[in-house]
Amino acid sequence: MSKQETAKKSGRPSKSGYSHNTVRDKLIWCGTALLTEKGFHSTGLEEILRQVNVPKGSFYHYFKNKEAFGEEVIDNYAAYFSRKLQKHLDNDAYPALQRLHNFIEENKQGMAKYNFQRGCLVGNLGQELGNSNDKFRTQIEAVFQSWQQQVSGCLRLAQQEGTLAKEANCDYLAEFFWIGWEGAVLRSKLTRNDQPLSIFSAQFFALLPH
Amino acid sequence: MSKQETAKKSGRPSKSGYSHNTVRDKLIWCGTALLTEKGFHSTGLEEILRQVNVPKGSFYHYFKNKEAFGEEVIDNYAAYFSRKLQKHLDNDAYPALQRLHNFIEENKQGMAKYNFQRGCLVGNLGQELGNSNDKFRTQIEAVFQSWQQQVSGCLRLAQQEGTLAKEANCDYLAEFFWIGWEGAVLRSKLTRNDQPLSIFSAQFFALLPH
Repeated sequence: MSKQETAKKSGRPSKSGYSHNTVRDKLIWCGTALLTEKGFHSTGLEEILRQVNVPKGSFYHYFKNKEAFGEEVIDNYAAYFSRKLQKHLDNDAYPALQRLHNFIEENKQGMAKYNFQRGCLVGNLGQELGNSNDKFRTQIEAVFQSWQQQVSGCLRLAQQEGTLAKEANCDYLAEFFWIGWEGAVLRSKLTRNDQPLSIFSAQFFALLPH
Repeated sequence: MSKQETAKKSGRPSKSGYSHNTVRDKLIWCGTALLTEKGFHSTGLEEILRQVNVPKGSFYHYFKNKEAFGEEVIDNYAAYFSRKLQKHLDNDAYPALQRLHNFIEENKQGMAKYNFQRGCLVGNLGQELGNSNDKFRTQIEAVFQSWQQQVSGCLRLAQQEGTLAKEANCDYLAEFFWIGWEGAVLRSKLTRNDQPLSIFSAQFFALLPH
């Protein structure tokens, strides 16, 4: 049986990410939305089951417990966001730095769509669960590391194109970007507008060494 | 009666901040520590009252409700942190940018002292309560604005000293600093070390236009 077939049979995500087809996947997508907006502890399983129209008590048929569900929700969000990021970073219709800029613009619109109340699931849960749960903490840190590698690749391309100084440390700059970006997402939830996202990205690009 | 006397009598903070003397102040300082580490909803009033050795049920003698208590805890932390910041920014033994650097170093040590588990009360509560409570949201945003003004003043001094380019927008840079700094504090809680704080501050200073 191929990996994809195994994934389909078990209801586990295939490499291309979760579909919306199975009840299991619907629970995960619904959990992704609710956990992003309300956090882990404040989201009741009943609410998710009700929204997906699954009878109460069926949850444990799909997931061992709420923690295991949370881990899959994080995996799902991480893969979804990574695809969104890579879609822009691979778009060779634009120079490298513009691709990163385009990704930022899409995210600003995404935050506006939900009135700047959702933010980033991984940032939110990192804040909520990082202290109390080592498994979540290491899982979430690994997600940031992986997004950083994607941005670092984009910055290296900018170096090849001559829009970023050859001596710039792309790994450091990518880490700097994600540190600041998550701060900007958090702050936009307070201001309820995209000003922190705009200020952060404008300054980030302006300060890059040419 | 002077403002200070009024403050003393009512148990409200004087302009110089809360002392540790009254039961009321002890409750606020204990709340500051616990809310920073555990968040607003996860901290029970009983735990605070027990730590300060105040009988259960006395809480409402001092505060209208948990929300009013939270507001005072935020005010207390904001004033405490503002003093810590200004102490460095006023220290004319150092050039302006070094003063900001010294403040960062003190905070790195502060986070290390609590094993990178506490972070920043205002950042934490902004994340936890920003969506659900408009009063907290606007209070917390105002705290950031005020800290930004302090850093902006420091950057203007650096311009006078000639270590920051005259054309730099100090208000934007100060906002950029706080956006990124809060992101770095959040991230350090995930890595459980000061690397995100170090990377953020090193890059911030390296990227400033000279």
